[in-house]
Amino acid sequence: MFKIQIICVGKLHYKELYETSKRFEKMISQFSELTIVEIKESNKPFPKNLDEEGKKIIQTIKGDYIILTDANGVEMDSYEFAKVIEEKMNIGKSISIIIGGHQGVSEEIKKLAHLRISFSKMTFGHNIFRIMLLEQIYRAFSIITNTGYNK
Amino acid sequence: MFKIQIICVGKLHYKELYETSKRFEKMISQFSELTIVEIKESNKPFPKNLDEEGKKIIQTIKGDYIILTDANGVEMDSYEFAKVIEEKMNIGKSISIIIGGHQGVSEEIKKLAHLRISFSKMTFGHNIFRIMLLEQIYRAFSIITNTGYNK
Repeated sequence: MFKIQIICVGKLHYKELYETSKRFEKMISQFSELTIVEIKESNKPFPKNLDEEGKKIIQTIKGDYIILTDANGVEMDSYEFAKVIEEKMNIGKSISIIIGGHQGVSEEIKKLAHLRISFSKMTFGHNIFRIMLLEQIYRAFSIITNTGYNK
Repeated sequence: MFKIQIICVGKLHYKELYETSKRFEKMISQFSELTIVEIKESNKPFPKNLDEEGKKIIQTIKGDYIILTDANGVEMDSYEFAKVIEEKMNIGKSISIIIGGHQGVSEEIKKLAHLRISFSKMTFGHNIFRIMLLEQIYRAFSIITNTGYNK
């Protein structure tokens, strides 16, 4: 089965969002194996060196294709994002998606990423952002499999 | 006190998101009066005429300045969005923000709007979108008042 791994720096501070996360994880599990790994955020000042947090991210990455969510990344619509996922599925590559902390990630991790993607010109906190990402992954599978989703 | 009204077509299907909504409503209430009105979504096909849903939206609008969230609207970053809110605050105008259903809103409502704003090239369901909007409103007040917010 296709595999997606999400690596998040930091926990969800809004506890009820774990319930929303679980909702989407269950919905996505029809289409893909999904694992979410939370990494402790370091409180080093920006710009980041490859500190404990960064090393932990690199150790954790399991996917063949690495996507970094990044304010300076390329903006895509939901169909373009679905196409990225579909292409990797078709060639049997797994995906790791990294959500950095609010200070971003180190240059080393930026260089590792095959794709840097921005979801919005706006800044969203990581609590909300994790849910936005899960929603787009589920939406991507709805697009790929042509099954409806409009919640 | 400054007033923001959010007019949403449709309910939140993910019940726990009411808890997240309440969180942000409480956080926003330090800065502004905030009311959220839910309007029943009609199931008329696209393109929409000014049906019951549209008439209800128009009857409900209380703000001086009307913002429509719209996939074809202008993309702004969080600072530009904060500036829009700050400008209206400074001249004592209240704001109504409309979130349409998944078929969008009628042309009449598009014409009523003073500003049409897009949050992302991506499509987000209205469940998640309502939370994204509340987060951006709170973030806007954090920017305007120069108080920190990085959850």
